[in-house]
Amino acid sequence: MTHKIAILGASGYTGAELVRLIATHPHLEIAALSAERKAGMAMGQVFPHLRHLDLPKLVKIEEIDFTGIDLCFCALPHATSQAVIKGLPETLKIVDLSADFRLRDPAEYEKWYGKPHSALDQQAEAVYGLTEFYRDDIKQARLVAGTGCNAATGQYGLRPLIEAGLIDLDDIIIDLKTGVSGAGRSLKENLLHAELSEGAHPYAVGGTHRHLAEFDQEFSRVAGRPVKVQFTPHLLPANRGIVATVYVKGDPQAIHNALEKAYVGEPFVVTLPFGEAPSTRHVRGSNFAHVGVSADRIDGRAIVVVALDNLTKGSSGQALQNANLMLGIDETAGLMLAPVFP
Amino acid sequence: MTHKIAILGASGYTGAELVRLIATHPHLEIAALSAERKAGMAMGQVFPHLRHLDLPKLVKIEEIDFTGIDLCFCALPHATSQAVIKGLPETLKIVDLSADFRLRDPAEYEKWYGKPHSALDQQAEAVYGLTEFYRDDIKQARLVAGTGCNAATGQYGLRPLIEAGLIDLDDIIIDLKTGVSGAGRSLKENLLHAELSEGAHPYAVGGTHRHLAEFDQEFSRVAGRPVKVQFTPHLLPANRGIVATVYVKGDPQAIHNALEKAYVGEPFVVTLPFGEAPSTRHVRGSNFAHVGVSADRIDGRAIVVVALDNLTKGSSGQALQNANLMLGIDETAGLMLAPVFP
Amino acid sequence: MTHKIAILGASGYTGAELVRLIATHPHLEIAALSAERKAGMAMGQVFPHLRHLDLPKLVKIEEIDFTGIDLCFCALPHATSQAVIKGLPETLKIVDLSADFRLRDPAEYEKWYGKPHSALDQQAEAVYGLTEFYRDDIKQARLVAGTGCNAATGQYGLRPLIEAGLIDLDDIIIDLKTGVSGAGRSLKENLLHAELSEGAHPYAVGGTHRHLAEFDQEFSRVAGRPVKVQFTPHLLPANRGIVATVYVKGDPQAIHNALEKAYVGEPFVVTLPFGEAPSTRHVRGSNFAHVGVSADRIDGRAIVVVALDNLTKGSSGQALQNANLMLGIDETAGLMLAPVFP
Amino acid sequence: MTHKIAILGASGYTGAELVRLIATHPHLEIAALSAERKAGMAMGQVFPHLRHLDLPKLVKIEEIDFTGIDLCFCALPHATSQAVIKGLPETLKIVDLSADFRLRDPAEYEKWYGKPHSALDQQAEAVYGLTEFYRDDIKQARLVAGTGCNAATGQYGLRPLIEAGLIDLDDIIIDLKTGVSGAGRSLKENLLHAELSEGAHPYAVGGTHRHLAEFDQEFSRVAGRPVKVQFTPHLLPANRGIVATVYVKGDPQAIHNALEKAYVGEPFVVTLPFGEAPSTRHVRGSNFAHVGVSADRIDGRAIVVVALDNLTKGSSGQALQNANLMLGIDETAGLMLAPVFP
Repeated sequence: MTHKIAILGASGYTGAELVRLIATHPHLEIAALSAERKAGMAMGQVFPHLRHLDLPKLVKIEEIDFTGIDLCFCALPHATSQAVIKGLPETLKIVDLSADFRLRDPAEYEKWYGKPHSALDQQAEAVYGLTEFYRDDIKQARLVAGTGCNAATGQYGLRPLIEAGLIDLDDIIIDLKTGVSGAGRSLKENLLHAELSEGAHPYAVGGTHRHLAEFDQEFSRVAGRPVKVQFTPHLLPANRGIVATVYVKGDPQAIHNALEKAYVGEPFVVTLPFGEAPSTRHVRGSNFAHVGVSADRIDGRAIVVVALDNLTKGSSGQALQNANLMLGIDETAGLMLAPVFP
Repeated sequence: MTHKIAILGASGYTGAELVRLIATHPHLEIAALSAERKAGMAMGQVFPHLRHLDLPKLVKIEEIDFTGIDLCFCALPHATSQAVIKGLPETLKIVDLSADFRLRDPAEYEKWYGKPHSALDQQAEAVYGLTEFYRDDIKQARLVAGTGCNAATGQYGLRPLIEAGLIDLDDIIIDLKTGVSGAGRSLKENLLHAELSEGAHPYAVGGTHRHLAEFDQEFSRVAGRPVKVQFTPHLLPANRGIVATVYVKGDPQAIHNALEKAYVGEPFVVTLPFGEAPSTRHVRGSNFAHVGVSADRIDGRAIVVVALDNLTKGSSGQALQNANLMLGIDETAGLMLAPVFP
Repeated sequence: MTHKIAILGASGYTGAELVRLIATHPHLEIAALSAERKAGMAMGQVFPHLRHLDLPKLVKIEEIDFTGIDLCFCALPHATSQAVIKGLPETLKIVDLSADFRLRDPAEYEKWYGKPHSALDQQAEAVYGLTEFYRDDIKQARLVAGTGCNAATGQYGLRPLIEAGLIDLDDIIIDLKTGVSGAGRSLKENLLHAELSEGAHPYAVGGTHRHLAEFDQEFSRVAGRPVKVQFTPHLLPANRGIVATVYVKGDPQAIHNALEKAYVGEPFVVTLPFGEAPSTRHVRGSNFAHVGVSADRIDGRAIVVVALDNLTKGSSGQALQNANLMLGIDETAGLMLAPVFP
Repeated sequence: MTHKIAILGASGYTGAELVRLIATHPHLEIAALSAERKAGMAMGQVFPHLRHLDLPKLVKIEEIDFTGIDLCFCALPHATSQAVIKGLPETLKIVDLSADFRLRDPAEYEKWYGKPHSALDQQAEAVYGLTEFYRDDIKQARLVAGTGCNAATGQYGLRPLIEAGLIDLDDIIIDLKTGVSGAGRSLKENLLHAELSEGAHPYAVGGTHRHLAEFDQEFSRVAGRPVKVQFTPHLLPANRGIVATVYVKGDPQAIHNALEKAYVGEPFVVTLPFGEAPSTRHVRGSNFAHVGVSADRIDGRAIVVVALDNLTKGSSGQALQNANLMLGIDETAGLMLAPVFP
């Protein structure tokens, strides 16, 4: 059986990644692709790596007839996303990849994103899209909010530990390194090759990155009390991949056990043997996340390392995994592609 | 229906690439993997990006029971390959990825590789594996010789032109740029990151690269007279991808027409609109090859540009495409993965 | 003795490179730096790698008092440059890094740059800045026009050969590979890290690149008859460096001899032993150019390879070398920095 | 006045970097270069980026006549270094770049390096080479032990804070990211371009990296009590550069003040304005270190970020700075080269 889907915002990296994954999906058919400034162009002109595919032309959102479309991926910028989704048919299943429906509390949204939320009804029904922890809700959801890519990475390392009460909640540091595609295809000086290659630096130092809003919401929810972590992202000279090095206080072996237990049976989250650390290059282009735990030389301290591909497991792959659940088809359909190495 | 296959030399990049592609192949099952120095290890230890797969342990070749195995991929170094293949069961279908069975004339083999060929019987029956031009022979073959990755790239741009008598055969220049994975996983100073990144240089300048033997053999065969091209490879600071810029004398529009005609209906070779040039990044990780033609400002001269992924279409993807033909299954099975961009 | 200099357009890469080189120059003092949009900022804010230097603030051009300034570097975009230079004091020595004064024939300028030239008087007096070939003129010049970086690279390989009548003038191919900083700090999608890294592609295929105007002018001038070359630039995933692979018909050994002879005694152009080829990584960050010659396996054909750093020898280093000559100081002052490897 | 120097182990990256820096040094002359396996070769063959220099041939150490040599740089592997230095003339000034003389306590050396120290007399006289903190001792020293590159980076961020009693000594985390040249020119699979580019991963997780021995020694010495930090290095796809993100508990503003005060007047250590973070690309190829401090959103926590070039300030630049002091010449001679960006 084939389900028809639409992708809004198909001219960005997450849109293109959705198309790449759906290209070999056995049960989905791409019925519509939108892009505002590039409407009228063929997808293969905007993304020549997709030129072998037979795809609908890019159109403006208002040109799309949503009749017969089963599910819509929204890969639009935040703020735009809420305005658009408010106007979509109420029966249409939606997976949103923006930040607009991640935060449950509208006040938090306004605090971190600088504007009041304009689609409160939809926000109220949205389910947070971290598949492994919200699977049952996602199956029933009409609207799923994709997580931040950094936020997903950190949560894979920490949720089971907080849940199990294994770590000091007041002393959690997430030192994260991310490839540049997470910043999208926007024209910014600091994203130029000449500015980025052959170097690295932290940004948003000291707790200003918006994905902290998700960490705060989710970790506090799991803990049943407010939890604030420290979080420093760094920009890597690499296109894809996030590796988060998480410093916690707790028993390393118990921590490893808890993570192993949490992910047993999960198709995409792999817990490495104790003492091994993952690398972004071993998950590149795939929907897999690798999680490792090492003991520090100081007793009672552990380092948890998580690696995933920000465009796949951190964004479009996660979105497709959730769409599969929402459509009642095999959760792994279209997603078992092995990582591309080297 | 499932066919059982073996991969000899699975600890190199082409071996790993075969496993990556076969991981989502609907009709192949990996029954055996060999690696000499790493025998006894799990594939996921040697290549952690494959750790989510349930694969047989790496063993020495002599430990493999070939009973019940339908086809064997040999991803061994040249010279080793002929010695091993000579000893394999005579009924086993084989796709060899080394240089050992590419040259029809044993004297040419000895000239370019410095040693007499030691498996002349097998050499005599081998079919050259450039799928689009030897498809019927490959379907019937027991032993197929994978082409050199550079040799494949150049041939996609030139064979139809030579065939159609459209270009000056005495003035062909192939200026080729290749990523580093073509050199394999060998420990050489010039393959270190610090030696390679952020720079480029030509090597084997002046006509010493061994893939010239294939160009000579194939182009002369197509032309019906001796053809010698100029060929300069350059090493790029990139892991995957080859782009060949081919300078020819002939009518640019006729050249474009001939290439378009040659590849119409081909599942993996895409001819770009006249005047467009391909990029390695638009074929990365995929079995697609992109071919473009531009007119030079000087009348009667054209530039043909071909891009493909050396590990996929240039090596392991080609090998799988040929294996599909040899096994009588859909030629594109396992190979429709879209390129990974960015 | 100290000469005061100004740099107009200091917020681009060539402006920053001038500052880098002048930082350790024994006889130059930076008296003024201009940048239109970034006027008012400190240079160390725009280019944090220069923050240890004590530099004048960035100002608008009209704020600069040119009294007492001995020489002015113009690192402005073409078209802007001619408008500005027309208005500078007539006695001020100027080294222009734009394309505006490279072409002797105003009709050629209009043809390649799409607009009539608006500073014809200055154009008439400008000296073409390829130091090794115009040294005497440069010493006497008031206005020197820096060459295109690609144009310089190709000329180092070809001028002595054309001069000596050693090659077929109707069959010259320059296949050139360049790092991305040659395109400047402009915000273009195709210059983003995610679009560029890990791949390569040709651009301006078929003879449309503007540096062809310089090749045509200079090679025809040296030959005493019209010469048109083929020229295909490729974009590399590297920040600095150009390598040009030049295919010519002529005697390889005679070609090597001619180049060796041409550059004997030159402080910055190094001819490699016959059969060796240069690499961009061995000239990175320096004012050196490396030139190599190899014989092709086909008799009477040679491959000349030239490598230099586009920002240094191809642009700002050349400009400083010329400024040294114009000011009557040691030509190599500030320029003997060894390349940075790795 | 000119001092004659020798470099032992000139065929590695730190040896080449010393030659690069000394190339423009006004008072040093390279009198001898050694390399064991490459003895007999010209330096320009081993490092073509140095081919423009007039340098002595590479010889074996025993071929060097140390008469008339004022100072010797030892860029040999650890263990080899102590064996060689033991046999050098007792009056020869030595700057050692290996790990052999960094640790004061022979038992610590044996613990971290797995073998007893064999040059205890020399170890006893060696001065630890972190210039800014041991300047007076270095001026008087005969033998100076260059620091580990990671160890230097961490100390620039932490020494003044420990000294001033500003931070919790039991909760210090150094999350460090380093380019690959720190691992040298050795042939290891994990240093191949194809294994490294486009990805990142931590290594030596949990406190096994040998530079911890230096942190322990130096921080405990400064604090007057045992101090153990957590330290996780990560490998970056970049050739040069280290950035250390240091998490401490203390007052951010006081921390910034202490660092600013510590480095006022220092020629090479630049404290950034409060809230700014450095980048490796702004110190590349130079002897500068940039130090930044930001407040975390959690009260009483600060993030200190330090960036430097591992081959320059982290190794060969530091060595030259110390040599200048030992020879009584200007500390900054040969070292004021501005960083290379982009």
